Amino acid sequence: MPISQLRRGRGSVIHGDFQQRIRNSFARQRAMETIGAELTRVEHGSVEIELNFDPKLTQQHGFLHAGVISAALDSACGYAAYSVIDPDASILTIEFKVNLMSPGRGERFLFRGDVTKPGSTIIVADGRAYAISDGPAKLIASMTGTMMVIRGREGITG
Amino acid sequence: MPISQLRRGRGSVIHGDFQQRIRNSFARQRAMETIGAELTRVEHGSVEIELNFDPKLTQQHGFLHAGVISAALDSACGYAAYSVIDPDASILTIEFKVNLMSPGRGERFLFRGDVTKPGSTIIVADGRAYAISDGPAKLIASMTGTMMVIRGREGITG
Amino acid sequence: MPISQLRRGRGSVIHGDFQQRIRNSFARQRAMETIGAELTRVEHGSVEIELNFDPKLTQQHGFLHAGVISAALDSACGYAAYSVIDPDASILTIEFKVNLMSPGRGERFLFRGDVTKPGSTIIVADGRAYAISDGPAKLIASMTGTMMVIRGREGITG
Amino acid sequence: MPISQLRRGRGSVIHGDFQQRIRNSFARQRAMETIGAELTRVEHGSVEIELNFDPKLTQQHGFLHAGVISAALDSACGYAAYSVIDPDASILTIEFKVNLMSPGRGERFLFRGDVTKPGSTIIVADGRAYAISDGPAKLIASMTGTMMVIRGREGITG
Repeated sequence: MPISQLRRGRGSVIHGDFQQRIRNSFARQRAMETIGAELTRVEHGSVEIELNFDPKLTQQHGFLHAGVISAALDSACGYAAYSVIDPDASILTIEFKVNLMSPGRGERFLFRGDVTKPGSTIIVADGRAYAISDGPAKLIASMTGTMMVIRGREGITG
Repeated sequence: MPISQLRRGRGSVIHGDFQQRIRNSFARQRAMETIGAELTRVEHGSVEIELNFDPKLTQQHGFLHAGVISAALDSACGYAAYSVIDPDASILTIEFKVNLMSPGRGERFLFRGDVTKPGSTIIVADGRAYAISDGPAKLIASMTGTMMVIRGREGITG
Repeated sequence: MPISQLRRGRGSVIHGDFQQRIRNSFARQRAMETIGAELTRVEHGSVEIELNFDPKLTQQHGFLHAGVISAALDSACGYAAYSVIDPDASILTIEFKVNLMSPGRGERFLFRGDVTKPGSTIIVADGRAYAISDGPAKLIASMTGTMMVIRGREGITG
Repeated sequence: MPISQLRRGRGSVIHGDFQQRIRNSFARQRAMETIGAELTRVEHGSVEIELNFDPKLTQQHGFLHAGVISAALDSACGYAAYSVIDPDASILTIEFKVNLMSPGRGERFLFRGDVTKPGSTIIVADGRAYAISDGPAKLIASMTGTMMVIRGREGITG
């Protein structure tokens, strides 16, 4: 992991093998498995999750449910935050806002989270969701989330 | 349906059998079935959804995933909005904000959505999520959502 | 401080003379003076601010500007949070969301902030703005804000 | 108006002299005058507003009040939306969320609004606020706002 030894990205130190920590944590998120989400890209301050369309994830009009979009965006934003903190800390989402811009219609969906403002206690991350079919990806939703860095709270690791 | 012939609730007319329309629409939401959510109360301007804890819905710390909380709150708020519109119209969520106040720890969860501001084009609804175990229900999350009333758009009914 | 030994609200201890601390802090908010806002009610977990309509506070259609509504709601929510913390701590707003439900048209405006979820680090407060003319007060906006409790940071008191 | 005849952005048609319409509308916003805000850049889908620090705009710690930051960001986002609609329509802010990332400390502030998602009824815009002193501009806040395109409503023009 040479990348993890570099310093870069928004003034933060890179803490060891954050990629492995994120993969371990993602694997513990049963909800991500339930919706069929995969972690497809992990960089310092930026994480991508992808998902195939599945009829079991639809709202009443047959599009991807806003809650599924939120779940994947929240995970992408949360892990983007998790990628910039020290190995002993953990991340909890305090709040997020989602704007649903176009129906969740597509064969596959990409959810990207990026750290906008790192911090020792509060991290702000922004996410974007895209529907992918033939042709260019279409922006379907955006998120801004506020994450809290947690240290030393029992039962909250990863 | 004597209730549906009354006028009440926040100055809105009650439109026919909104309860049946909501139950039909909910039944088409495959995502609600996937997470095991049930529609437990439908009134004019107010809807409740309930959910049993299930390990397949967890985030990495074993609590109910924020995305699942959002999905159920969004549905409760959306159907609360749906309950106050005329039968030919439909509801799309434009955006929502969720505050996650306490970990999603409990045996069962209740999600309630209430119309705060009805309108012919835009409806604002507020939601609250509660964890239920022994003892009093615990507030775990709140939502404010903005819904748009849709008319005459192909493929968008219910 | 007999009050602080008697009253409790929402599970929090009442800390000394929070009313005086809030009045002192409000008096230091030059922006509140600039918009003509007054602190009209201070209780444990709940604060009200009032404002007369003034043409210098309008947006392009002659209604009260959304930013003025936000400023007053943020102050009401922030002081509601401030009323439940210990005297050595301070409050910073991390983020808020405002829904503007009706035009800011009226002779006078009332902004109320209430603590929804107290906490040692994060406090969530909800606010409502009302326009007051003849007849009943009209709900014009709502806010949900997330506040952080700050301790021992230089230059941040009150 | 060579700019308005040449440039297009984000798939929208450019509608005549949007720059002049925005300047006229801004001039009617008394709240912008009250806080000393100036419209410094108007392009298709993107607007900037600037403001000098003024002690009359402070919160209790002497920083720029969150409400002032919100007012300027809301105006930048609203005019960014206004720049992409047809000349007979108008814009109302339905809701926005602001994240306050760093104290509003600086000699001058820049507020930029950009259209993220144009639309015939709903437009989503994102804003960023920067503090400017010596050295590089510092990101102090972000906004996501939802705007509604209004047509034919009496008293709502510009």
